[in-house]
Amino acid sequence: MILTVTLNTALDITYRVRGLKPHASHRVTGVLERPGGKGLNVARVLAALGHEVTATGFAGGATGDVVRELLAATEGLHDALVPLGTGATRRTIAVVDDVTGDTTQLNEPGPAVTPTEWAAFQRRYDDLLPSADAVALCGSLPPGVPVNAYAGLIRTARAAGVPVLLDTSGEPLRRAVAARPDIVKPNADELAELTGSHEPLGAVQDARRRGAHAVVASLGAEGLLAHTPEGRWRAAPPASLHGNPTGAGDAAMAGLLSALVENLPWPDRLTRAAALSAASVLSPVAGEFDRGTYEELLGRVKVTGEVSAA
Amino acid sequence: MILTVTLNTALDITYRVRGLKPHASHRVTGVLERPGGKGLNVARVLAALGHEVTATGFAGGATGDVVRELLAATEGLHDALVPLGTGATRRTIAVVDDVTGDTTQLNEPGPAVTPTEWAAFQRRYDDLLPSADAVALCGSLPPGVPVNAYAGLIRTARAAGVPVLLDTSGEPLRRAVAARPDIVKPNADELAELTGSHEPLGAVQDARRRGAHAVVASLGAEGLLAHTPEGRWRAAPPASLHGNPTGAGDAAMAGLLSALVENLPWPDRLTRAAALSAASVLSPVAGEFDRGTYEELLGRVKVTGEVSAA
Repeated sequence: MILTVTLNTALDITYRVRGLKPHASHRVTGVLERPGGKGLNVARVLAALGHEVTATGFAGGATGDVVRELLAATEGLHDALVPLGTGATRRTIAVVDDVTGDTTQLNEPGPAVTPTEWAAFQRRYDDLLPSADAVALCGSLPPGVPVNAYAGLIRTARAAGVPVLLDTSGEPLRRAVAARPDIVKPNADELAELTGSHEPLGAVQDARRRGAHAVVASLGAEGLLAHTPEGRWRAAPPASLHGNPTGAGDAAMAGLLSALVENLPWPDRLTRAAALSAASVLSPVAGEFDRGTYEELLGRVKVTGEVSAA
Repeated sequence: MILTVTLNTALDITYRVRGLKPHASHRVTGVLERPGGKGLNVARVLAALGHEVTATGFAGGATGDVVRELLAATEGLHDALVPLGTGATRRTIAVVDDVTGDTTQLNEPGPAVTPTEWAAFQRRYDDLLPSADAVALCGSLPPGVPVNAYAGLIRTARAAGVPVLLDTSGEPLRRAVAARPDIVKPNADELAELTGSHEPLGAVQDARRRGAHAVVASLGAEGLLAHTPEGRWRAAPPASLHGNPTGAGDAAMAGLLSALVENLPWPDRLTRAAALSAASVLSPVAGEFDRGTYEELLGRVKVTGEVSAA
């Protein structure tokens, strides 16, 4: 199975309103609730692709209960979340303006995690690792979880011989890269924040020098840029799709993980990641994708690059 | 005890953000959760004043569970809410901008109530009425509850000899006024919508002609305007207080109810209502008030008017 770690799970709520105006009162015309947090988005895409996935991390409070109920309804997804004693899973609210099409995002801070809860999670992670074909560490850290958390989880996974994919930002990313994860998937902003360079080619090389074995940068409409021990590639869908970009990076992560555990070569991994990422843009919520578009794009993603000299 | 009816209860969530900008992403710096819906605000103010209150209406889903947990922690308040089978209590989100002080409101639609649930509520209401010294019917109707719901509840209460106070709007208000409630408490907009007149004095008289025994209009900073069989009065706090006007009308309702069951004369009822209304503006959430301000204002509210000729 594939193990996904979401330390800061969320209940993602999408509201539709007709014209968002600050200082006004709005009648919400549509409400959607989904399990959220990057790792749970990745897990849901993997489950939809037919993989067995185990989702761990933290869940708490009434919002955590709703997240777990929604996960229970997802075929192929095993819930191994660790309960919080008093903290509640955060909500994120995406307010979609039906007039302009714009989305305004309101993100609650995460719950405070106690040292006892963090220790309980680490035991759960250690128990799950031996059955994992790959592990994905995704998203922000809630308050109380040490900033070097991902670095420790990467070392444990590498010691167990389990490939680790990482998608986070800021200081947790900086610390984790030094622990030598197998693949890091930053977006353009995260890459620039890590390396200080806004030039993706140089920044990707810098991220590898900092410890990542492979770096796959997701550059929005420009697709993916990958530097790996096996070679360097760019993968891009035939055209930019208009829609909801939230979750596109998570869909790309799911594509990379899925193709990795199937032992596909890098160009095929990138094709799958780019096709899933583009197809997820057509879905109104993160963690889902348009299957017809995905299958059609698999044959149309263009991968260019070169294999490294042996 | 005092009975409050809230057919469309809510989980009121208050977010603090630094500068709300449409189409941007915002980190929420503070989250407050409170039981919501006008009737629950009234019930909480009554309980804080030391009255025994029973709150009925509907609650459902995970949000309903949170509302009930919060009510359970309120001394003097008895939870007699009727559970919904599948519908969930709506959320309301007040986004307070710490830069401008403005509040932007997002209100979910209410849950769909089935005919069976509506019948269960009516039985609960009939069971509770004999123990009630007064009943307050407050707020909007969720989908599925008939538009003449309040009219029926008023007739039942009047047949049982229990005084009825009403605070709603639109068509439910129009229908309910004809059923001859004891007191109706519209705000300026609701009064204008009911009567077609934006001139409060004439509109209040019109509302009485439509069936209300007494009308107490809440006119924001201008205080209260009351036309009753016993006389006509205006009650105003000494100065307009700056703060959160949400819930000011509910605090006024609680003041009227509280003084009614204590058999106080109209000028004292209006003093209490105006003082509570003004003191609630200093509270960041509806259903709560600043006790020091309330007690101080009790001696400073100015009531002017005349007793009717016998």
